Amino acid sequence: MENKIHELKLILQEKNLENINEFVSHLQPYDIASILVELEQDEQLVFISIVPIQLGAEILEYLEPELQYKVLHRIKDKFTSSLLNEMSSDTIVNLLLSIHPHQAKKLMEFLPDDYRKKINTLMNYEPNTAGRLATVDYIAARINWTVDQALQHVRKVGHEAEIVSYIYVLGSRGELVGVVSLKEIILAKSGTKLGEIIQEDPISVTVDIHQEEAADILSNYDLVAIPVVAHDQRMIGILTVDDLIDVIHEEATEDFQKLGGSQPLAEPYFKNSIWGLFRKRIGWLLILFIAEAYTGTVLRHYEDTLSEQIALAFFVPLLIGTGGNTGSQTVTTLVRALAVGEVQFNDMFKVFRKEVATGFFLGITMGVVALIRAFFLGVDINIGAVVAISALFIVIWASTVAAILPMILHKLKIDPAVVSGPFITTLVDGTGLIIYFTLAKILLHI
Amino acid sequence: MENKIHELKLILQEKNLENINEFVSHLQPYDIASILVELEQDEQLVFISIVPIQLGAEILEYLEPELQYKVLHRIKDKFTSSLLNEMSSDTIVNLLLSIHPHQAKKLMEFLPDDYRKKINTLMNYEPNTAGRLATVDYIAARINWTVDQALQHVRKVGHEAEIVSYIYVLGSRGELVGVVSLKEIILAKSGTKLGEIIQEDPISVTVDIHQEEAADILSNYDLVAIPVVAHDQRMIGILTVDDLIDVIHEEATEDFQKLGGSQPLAEPYFKNSIWGLFRKRIGWLLILFIAEAYTGTVLRHYEDTLSEQIALAFFVPLLIGTGGNTGSQTVTTLVRALAVGEVQFNDMFKVFRKEVATGFFLGITMGVVALIRAFFLGVDINIGAVVAISALFIVIWASTVAAILPMILHKLKIDPAVVSGPFITTLVDGTGLIIYFTLAKILLHI
Repeated sequence: MENKIHELKLILQEKNLENINEFVSHLQPYDIASILVELEQDEQLVFISIVPIQLGAEILEYLEPELQYKVLHRIKDKFTSSLLNEMSSDTIVNLLLSIHPHQAKKLMEFLPDDYRKKINTLMNYEPNTAGRLATVDYIAARINWTVDQALQHVRKVGHEAEIVSYIYVLGSRGELVGVVSLKEIILAKSGTKLGEIIQEDPISVTVDIHQEEAADILSNYDLVAIPVVAHDQRMIGILTVDDLIDVIHEEATEDFQKLGGSQPLAEPYFKNSIWGLFRKRIGWLLILFIAEAYTGTVLRHYEDTLSEQIALAFFVPLLIGTGGNTGSQTVTTLVRALAVGEVQFNDMFKVFRKEVATGFFLGITMGVVALIRAFFLGVDINIGAVVAISALFIVIWASTVAAILPMILHKLKIDPAVVSGPFITTLVDGTGLIIYFTLAKILLHI
Repeated sequence: MENKIHELKLILQEKNLENINEFVSHLQPYDIASILVELEQDEQLVFISIVPIQLGAEILEYLEPELQYKVLHRIKDKFTSSLLNEMSSDTIVNLLLSIHPHQAKKLMEFLPDDYRKKINTLMNYEPNTAGRLATVDYIAARINWTVDQALQHVRKVGHEAEIVSYIYVLGSRGELVGVVSLKEIILAKSGTKLGEIIQEDPISVTVDIHQEEAADILSNYDLVAIPVVAHDQRMIGILTVDDLIDVIHEEATEDFQKLGGSQPLAEPYFKNSIWGLFRKRIGWLLILFIAEAYTGTVLRHYEDTLSEQIALAFFVPLLIGTGGNTGSQTVTTLVRALAVGEVQFNDMFKVFRKEVATGFFLGITMGVVALIRAFFLGVDINIGAVVAISALFIVIWASTVAAILPMILHKLKIDPAVVSGPFITTLVDGTGLIIYFTLAKILLHI
């Protein structure tokens, strides 16, 4: 990588077109983009103006919007115009929404009128919807065309399309009536009408569907693109598999952060300022602090018990910690299982039974270990018994609550990832203490 | 859905071919598979023997290996043979490895000799590698062919290929020398030689690479398939985007379970027995229990302090809980950021600075809130001060440790997801207590 950057810097100084072509011919656009970000700004501009426009646009697709804008803004106008026209519409939408509206307005003047209108429509859809993510660079055909006409059409408009794997058949109002894959067109006998081979009622999504749902549909049906339609079935664009893979990554990242007890960051880690990280974390920390504060009330309630048997205090962190750990194991497993659809609300009873049983065996094991620990700490054997039995109950309790809560939230259409590890830990801390001290009072007769 | 199942049951009773064709023509193979699993076994067999073989094979692709086997085992031999030959090789490999070796051997007898050999090779690669996941149903061509010959070849072998988007150009030893997309073949002028338009040194992965790495490469380069080659560059097969999307989901699920403090389950939730869940969870629970046990030692060490000021005990769960929550927030964010490559080991110092600063402001806030809480609990103002200052230090400490540890593990090539929420919570519990009691002894002069 270091070598490549150095090599390109030297070639750019010579400005020898042949050497540059030789250099890029061995690399993928993604690799060239990774090298480009390491160059000085002037070098970037020279490079993008020298390589073929189509390659230049492909490289730009892999850059962050800020850098895309810098290049498009500083390069000569004729390049700005041709690059923009080669870039895919979803990239342009993302770029225009990431920069200042004034800057966006200026860039949009480089687009032809009808293309600008389309871009404007896409920009107006809500964030994280299928409409916002769609690209208009797909291939459309008419139902009465023959496969030969369709292939001719692909040859004519193919290089502008983001994906040629599917051809979408539209009706007179622009409504989606069917889809046919390029494979089927090629395999069909010459003269076959598209109407004979199209898939009618194709899988599609409406513009306002959430991007995560679109990604699920794509991965269930093993597609490489899904058509996006308006509510009147007019075709708006397509979602491509590469964009939806990014969505899958983003949504998993969000769930991770939620399960860790933080609000999702929305941006990559280093894009968040200290103040930004603070804001995302402090909310839940405070809520959990207030919820956890009642452990103080519980402990004060048992102040006399505690004064009489100070050894009981030694096991407080151990017992509530074990409860929290069990809860955390169960909750992450179930939140994820709900997210990927392995578990449904209807499975509640099955999950309940499974978790109570697993919790029982875990509790027995932990109880025995707790007894051994109490023995080695040299405390009264009765206290040891209290700790062991508490461990059993706390583990069962924690795994049950952690299994059931996310399912109820899912049913109530609240994101189950709200029940984070810290949330369950906090919930189990106070209730665990009540279990512990109640058992202590009963068994130790205090 | 319920309606569709009922409708199909009725149609199957009539055994009217036209009605069945009408029924399936409106549905995707994935949807038909979802309906099929709800039928009785006899109905499943009748249905699969009636629909066209190619559709039957496509439907089978969406079923679980157990059900695939049941159908292939019970259906008439001639169907078994044709279905197996239509199914993609990666599905067959997965099926054969999921059933008993005896059953697998019997099924393999239905495969033609050379195909059986290929399947055998794929089965011998390690689990979770590119080789194990590869399918051999790709289209290969020779470098001296013209685009017209290549297109003719696609027409001949296209229906057997899993993906026709790329044509792979192989040398005389079967080594991968280049790739050309179907789009480029169609857009090229008639008579163009493949050698003129192929991408040389194409992106490829070797057979023993981990599937997660392959998925990363695919998503970075925005491909829909990657060629898999042996160490001598011989082409073994391809990995397709739909399989790699499944890999992305699986790997995220594993990371979730690890972060929750459990060993990854490997199978969907309900496939795990109670005993299975127990085994995946007990290991970490015990390790964490033993680690947490030293909190008892710490507390016993401060027994005198505690006896003198029993009110100190009230804040133990609150303080260690808050430390655990902060640690959990930070660790999930960083483990994920490392997994998707947003953060590298070289960023250690930047991360450290950011987390210490964020922790400082979180700590100040939590300290103030702790002071208020102590006031309302009516404890001595000095104890309130100790709690507030402890909260500050514990929060800074927790966020720093939770940020640094995963990065060090990543550097040591240990999966950073080992530092789970429960792991950090446990680590912070004991150290938090030491901070708390040390401050108490100093500030309260006991």
